[in-house]
Amino acid sequence: MRDRLSEKDISTNMELCKDWALATDGLSISREFVFQSFVEAFGFMTEAALVAEKIDHHPEWSNTWRKVKVNLTTHSAKGLTALDFTLAKAMDQIAKKRLHSP
Amino acid sequence: MRDRLSEKDISTNMELCKDWALATDGLSISREFVFQSFVEAFGFMTEAALVAEKIDHHPEWSNTWRKVKVNLTTHSAKGLTALDFTLAKAMDQIAKKRLHSP
Amino acid sequence: MRDRLSEKDISTNMELCKDWALATDGLSISREFVFQSFVEAFGFMTEAALVAEKIDHHPEWSNTWRKVKVNLTTHSAKGLTALDFTLAKAMDQIAKKRLHSP
Amino acid sequence: MRDRLSEKDISTNMELCKDWALATDGLSISREFVFQSFVEAFGFMTEAALVAEKIDHHPEWSNTWRKVKVNLTTHSAKGLTALDFTLAKAMDQIAKKRLHSP
Repeated sequence: MRDRLSEKDISTNMELCKDWALATDGLSISREFVFQSFVEAFGFMTEAALVAEKIDHHPEWSNTWRKVKVNLTTHSAKGLTALDFTLAKAMDQIAKKRLHSP
Repeated sequence: MRDRLSEKDISTNMELCKDWALATDGLSISREFVFQSFVEAFGFMTEAALVAEKIDHHPEWSNTWRKVKVNLTTHSAKGLTALDFTLAKAMDQIAKKRLHSP
Repeated sequence: MRDRLSEKDISTNMELCKDWALATDGLSISREFVFQSFVEAFGFMTEAALVAEKIDHHPEWSNTWRKVKVNLTTHSAKGLTALDFTLAKAMDQIAKKRLHSP
Repeated sequence: MRDRLSEKDISTNMELCKDWALATDGLSISREFVFQSFVEAFGFMTEAALVAEKIDHHPEWSNTWRKVKVNLTTHSAKGLTALDFTLAKAMDQIAKKRLHSP
């Protein structure tokens, strides 16, 4: 889980993470989430924090009111690992119910 | 907001809170929420806590894994007030996106 | 971690969990925490939730304003396991900084 | 609360916020908090979020593992207001119990 992924593996994973952007150096991925309110944004962060702590892999993220910007990389591998994509997909799922709510 | 509601006002509010049960003594309302996981349940609790602290009106609630039981009453009014229904409706909204998510 | 503890092991653990009460049937332990505010109580719950999710062992707990009541048991073992005491000790540590703050 | 503070008022407030830095343009204040773990950092963020939502004044903040960087300003006033210092002092109090814990 903590081995650096090959370019090919990264490409395959990016196919499943359409809303994420790969950094030009290929070492991290990022996404901005926009919610309806601070309450929703922080609810998202709490659920994501529970997942992050469980898999022992934490995001670099910032929050301003109803926006959350996330950057994922694995420092110990100096690049992207399976853990980054596990966390990215979990965040997508957590955000989905909020972003799609009427 | 902190005046005790009449029976008629309680009835009108209960029409909008179909998933809540009025206690037989008419002094409190309760609802059980069932989510897909502990993470969802605690995300719900965090958003609800933010609303509760904002309106300075807090629930009596318990959590066991993916279930959250809520009881609302206003101690200072010895019964139900507009605040209880404000919090109940906010909780319904917060839960809705999770409960309806595929 | 999920094997039911012997009476002797429970006694040894209870020595380290002085603020917890063993149920008369010996199947669960409980503690009530009282904080200075709802904000502190919910901050405690959030840190405890992160630990609980990480070890995949969740409390039965209730919150009323600045109080949090916790009951710990392991359903799959029909009694107390090492996980219950791991979570109890983690909760004690999380609460300590708040309870001892001036 | 939402009126822009004079330079003199900012100076007086900065005396009480020794751990915060005033931006060179005088329009915002910032502080970095370092905790013992991600769990502590996120517990701090949750308590701070509850205060922020209550006073309807939200931080710009980022988190990387056990560090939290905070920047406070009031966009509507294009500078610092009493709300920024209210939130700064509340954050200091919330962090204190964690930072001073043994």
